[in-house]
Amino acid sequence: MTKVSGFVEWLPEQRIVELQWLDEIRRTFESYGFCSIETPAVEEIEVLLAKGETDKEIYIIKRLQGEGDKSDARLGLHYDLTVPLARYVAEHYNDLVFPFKRYQIQRVWRGERPQEGRYREFYQCDIDVINNNTIPLHFDAEMPAIVYEIFKRLGIESFQMHINNRKVLEGYFKGLGIEDTIPVIRIVDKLDKIGHGGVLTQLQEQVGMESELAERCLAIGSICTPDLSFVERVRALGVQSELLEQGLDELQFVMNELRNLPSGVILADLAIARGFDYYTGTVYEGKLAEFPALGTICSGGRYEDLTGSFISRKLPGVGISIGLTRLFAKLVAEKKIQPGPKSPTQVLVIFPDDERRAEAVQTASILRERGLNVELYPTPIKQAQQLRYASRKGIPYAWFLPYAEKGHEVKNLLSGEQQAADPTTWRPSPAR
Amino acid sequence: MTKVSGFVEWLPEQRIVELQWLDEIRRTFESYGFCSIETPAVEEIEVLLAKGETDKEIYIIKRLQGEGDKSDARLGLHYDLTVPLARYVAEHYNDLVFPFKRYQIQRVWRGERPQEGRYREFYQCDIDVINNNTIPLHFDAEMPAIVYEIFKRLGIESFQMHINNRKVLEGYFKGLGIEDTIPVIRIVDKLDKIGHGGVLTQLQEQVGMESELAERCLAIGSICTPDLSFVERVRALGVQSELLEQGLDELQFVMNELRNLPSGVILADLAIARGFDYYTGTVYEGKLAEFPALGTICSGGRYEDLTGSFISRKLPGVGISIGLTRLFAKLVAEKKIQPGPKSPTQVLVIFPDDERRAEAVQTASILRERGLNVELYPTPIKQAQQLRYASRKGIPYAWFLPYAEKGHEVKNLLSGEQQAADPTTWRPSPAR
Repeated sequence: MTKVSGFVEWLPEQRIVELQWLDEIRRTFESYGFCSIETPAVEEIEVLLAKGETDKEIYIIKRLQGEGDKSDARLGLHYDLTVPLARYVAEHYNDLVFPFKRYQIQRVWRGERPQEGRYREFYQCDIDVINNNTIPLHFDAEMPAIVYEIFKRLGIESFQMHINNRKVLEGYFKGLGIEDTIPVIRIVDKLDKIGHGGVLTQLQEQVGMESELAERCLAIGSICTPDLSFVERVRALGVQSELLEQGLDELQFVMNELRNLPSGVILADLAIARGFDYYTGTVYEGKLAEFPALGTICSGGRYEDLTGSFISRKLPGVGISIGLTRLFAKLVAEKKIQPGPKSPTQVLVIFPDDERRAEAVQTASILRERGLNVELYPTPIKQAQQLRYASRKGIPYAWFLPYAEKGHEVKNLLSGEQQAADPTTWRPSPAR
Repeated sequence: MTKVSGFVEWLPEQRIVELQWLDEIRRTFESYGFCSIETPAVEEIEVLLAKGETDKEIYIIKRLQGEGDKSDARLGLHYDLTVPLARYVAEHYNDLVFPFKRYQIQRVWRGERPQEGRYREFYQCDIDVINNNTIPLHFDAEMPAIVYEIFKRLGIESFQMHINNRKVLEGYFKGLGIEDTIPVIRIVDKLDKIGHGGVLTQLQEQVGMESELAERCLAIGSICTPDLSFVERVRALGVQSELLEQGLDELQFVMNELRNLPSGVILADLAIARGFDYYTGTVYEGKLAEFPALGTICSGGRYEDLTGSFISRKLPGVGISIGLTRLFAKLVAEKKIQPGPKSPTQVLVIFPDDERRAEAVQTASILRERGLNVELYPTPIKQAQQLRYASRKGIPYAWFLPYAEKGHEVKNLLSGEQQAADPTTWRPSPAR
């Protein structure tokens, strides 16, 4: 009997690091004023399919016992946090204050075939800003800045955020006289997966493009700059349209807002488009330069209408989502994440003998009231065995009750240093 | 399109309190040295049914699209955290250090018919201590002490923990010459629901007991004392058996360990037995004296063998589980929980005009680096409207950039007090 394949679970020494990550992400989201919401894991299938997405494999749920009530709605597990957000905002519209800034850190489920780097259950960490009618463009720059700050705090150095604006691609293709731009955008978006040759071939074979036009479509997708020079490079392609100008202006504004981040973190990458999604302006794809095969680890963008299928209000927004589990699992596998201790305990109070248990319990309690994580060894076995337990669990300090002429003492199990200590004032050294 | 009935979701102002609760519970668990684990929401049905439990309504999951791979295991959502713990310990046995002390705070799912106070998805907050072969009895006392500490921190005053030991009931009934004690225990366990008359009737009708014997069975179940006097009251019933003596000794030890908690919090309640569960010694049921109809809000006990159905090792343990959602929902409904602010933001930086956005962003950033939650109003609308936004979201401070001869100023929106402030040193008043 083992856990189901395609699902991931961590040992305590990895989970303690995952918890630190989740705390750091939450703290950063909150520092920018995003409030927490959680939605049920389960939505009606009609809600999950409201945007017509069918490329995500949905899990449906049914009661095992009994025949199942015919009146029961058809239910499924959410496969992202955006559809539930749309339903939540529509349902609680009158109780929310706009602009509504929410974060949501929850597991989502997809019925993927198990394969490396694909999980059937994973954490998504989302932020979105939603407002009535309009959202200023500077929020489009705030999203990547927040994600960069998180990755910096987590010590992930090779993070790169690729940014584009769908209006640039659409405007450019329209300027080339292409009417149905969607399949073209979709093919150019695959540039990093299928390469230049692949894009040209698919444009010719799937859209029936002449080779010269296909080259011109590829040309814009090949532009990827860490600065504002993309503007000149697009202009040099000699295509004009109002939409293209608007897209370039917006992308230029966003890139300029992010100019103070370290060079190379932010890239204007004119190939990306986030597939068929409902994004209408800025789009993001975050990657690790160190692990290109890992693909996109966060993504998002701006949309014109979050809740269109649920209520008749125009609620534009911009948001971004970090796919935490795949990233975390990769860094664990690559040994870029060192396991933490197997226990949150900071101090093991040595249990000397049965007569002194009350005294040991009381000492533990004094330390605990002062905010420390403390446990007693369960039984008064040999001291060496108790210390071995501490060391195996990664507990950094052992506490010794007064003995003979000695008072309380505490031992740093890493340095081996042992010294007198008062349980009402002692603190672990901040070095740890 | 609304959320599915039987599922609960909170507005931001309630969720912020739920998060504080979850933090407090986690912090307390960690302070006693319990490590965090999480298991997948999904287990094989065979795992979920391994202990033969069928009274919990299990949700099965299937892929919506495609025919479903015939080789796929039958999968279901976990309905508690104990079965996944058993599977986890069996699967990772060689990587864990024993005694293994884990906490687990996750949602679980049950296909209940929607009704008041019953949810199909809810948080459970579990701790368990598991060891090879033996676990000292003082852990049986630590569990209620930890839960009491949590409820005290959460400001829940009417909490009462009812404690019994299954050996007391079983030993007593055996001492009365009853061979099949299970149905008798089961009926006496229902005392708080069906009353004395109900217990007598069911003992006579369902087990075919003589009225005199039924009265003697009821007599032990009626004993409920806040101190050690239950021992004398049991002895006064004149029944003897070795198992009864052992049970009384154990319960007496546990009650004695908890003697320093405020009077009335801990009750030796000889009726409770946790139904058909796999508990073998101490059992717990926590309730709110204020809301008896709410029923059990936490429960647990000691078991001889956690993983018996998965590996051939004897792993006894003791644990307790808080059913958070039902408790939280009840206290929200009864207005015992006041809504928090609609946002974690502590300071709203007023956005004076477009020219000064960079300056406002920088001020926000300085405050944020110092650990504060800060946002800018999105657009430079009238100050009064920006302040109204802060007040509607429950943001306690508004920050004003230097203007004319004035420097930075901060306004406490509750007191109305406004004063000069330096963004590199200012702190909100600790009163909040």
